[in-house]
Amino acid sequence: MKRVKVSNNVIRRLPRYLRKLDELNENGVSRISSKELGEQLGLTPSQIRQDFSNFGEFGQQGYGYNVPALRAEIAGILGMERGFRAILVGVGNIGHALMDNFSFSDCGVELVAAFDVKESLIGTEFKSVPIYAGSRLESYLRENDVDIAVLAVPKEAAIRVTKILTENGIEAIWNFTNIELTEPNSPTIVENIHFSDSLLSMCYYVAERMDEHAAKAARAERTEQQD
Amino acid sequence: MKRVKVSNNVIRRLPRYLRKLDELNENGVSRISSKELGEQLGLTPSQIRQDFSNFGEFGQQGYGYNVPALRAEIAGILGMERGFRAILVGVGNIGHALMDNFSFSDCGVELVAAFDVKESLIGTEFKSVPIYAGSRLESYLRENDVDIAVLAVPKEAAIRVTKILTENGIEAIWNFTNIELTEPNSPTIVENIHFSDSLLSMCYYVAERMDEHAAKAARAERTEQQD
Repeated sequence: MKRVKVSNNVIRRLPRYLRKLDELNENGVSRISSKELGEQLGLTPSQIRQDFSNFGEFGQQGYGYNVPALRAEIAGILGMERGFRAILVGVGNIGHALMDNFSFSDCGVELVAAFDVKESLIGTEFKSVPIYAGSRLESYLRENDVDIAVLAVPKEAAIRVTKILTENGIEAIWNFTNIELTEPNSPTIVENIHFSDSLLSMCYYVAERMDEHAAKAARAERTEQQD
Repeated sequence: MKRVKVSNNVIRRLPRYLRKLDELNENGVSRISSKELGEQLGLTPSQIRQDFSNFGEFGQQGYGYNVPALRAEIAGILGMERGFRAILVGVGNIGHALMDNFSFSDCGVELVAAFDVKESLIGTEFKSVPIYAGSRLESYLRENDVDIAVLAVPKEAAIRVTKILTENGIEAIWNFTNIELTEPNSPTIVENIHFSDSLLSMCYYVAERMDEHAAKAARAERTEQQD
């Protein structure tokens, strides 16, 4: 596939398209217009056409999009058929929640091993994924082909473990610690899950709405007093 | 506070500024230039000045930013001092991980109650947060002042619980289910944590890098053959 540099905002929308197309598929919808797709996603039709135009021509004038075909295209763009292999480092609450509830395979990623320092976990398996001692991480990475590391260790261990990962060929880290892992311009691909960033952004919108309500109430009161 | 509509991208950067300022504070840095702050965050100084200009004048020409003062301004903008109250619905792995590891109070949010249907959890407390029966959710919302609901129920329950929440005064949902909760144009503020979106976006970048490596290798081979 020929690659052009696509803006991060477009990349962030691709998984949303994928989810919507899966939903349409499930509901037996095999064809959809960019207008209808836009309405369901809160995007304009021209935005949608522009997003897809980064990767080729997927729709047909007057016909719209073939849902399964478009789904397959987007899955391909996201690398879902490349068989990426991932390890999980840290099997605490969040690591455990990921192993238990998150479907790596739905993303085309195979979770091949997990690592922890807790004696009671080492040597066990969870949903067919072996859990090894943290001390084996380095040798495991040297002996196995791994694309992605899921980092779910405690804060204190984040930097040390990241060093082991990057020095042993890991290029991409899915980061569940609340630590900024890399310097700007570092070659490592880091995708942060910062729960607090998400909650705080939402709090902004809650505060904004409250202020709007308060301003509206104040205006109504002023109007009443003038009457 | 007078509010102007600020772009979502700016709102998304505010928590990152906050984290960086906390880190600077911890390291005893009390003053920083927009140039230095930009370098540490991978942003341009003009981007940073522009972001802050949405909310007022925080820096001083030739002096830079006072770190604690800027931190306080941003915390105020994010509504961290408003005492938002949250409930958690669903105390499974992810709900449990949030109660155990996520510091709501660091975001200025108080987690006041949790709800689950599991008999063994109902009536217990976890880190001083009471866990009530799911059937009590509706009456609890009617009797208590709650701003935010954290939704961590299984997929099947997501829509049903959302209906109870929105019909009983919840305006903001922090959504950990992999379900799109609202219609476009719904008044409910929904902040989604879609783990798969995050992983898939990262996979895109991994695939992109692999393609770049492959293209580079192919070019090198062609060059060699020509020699």
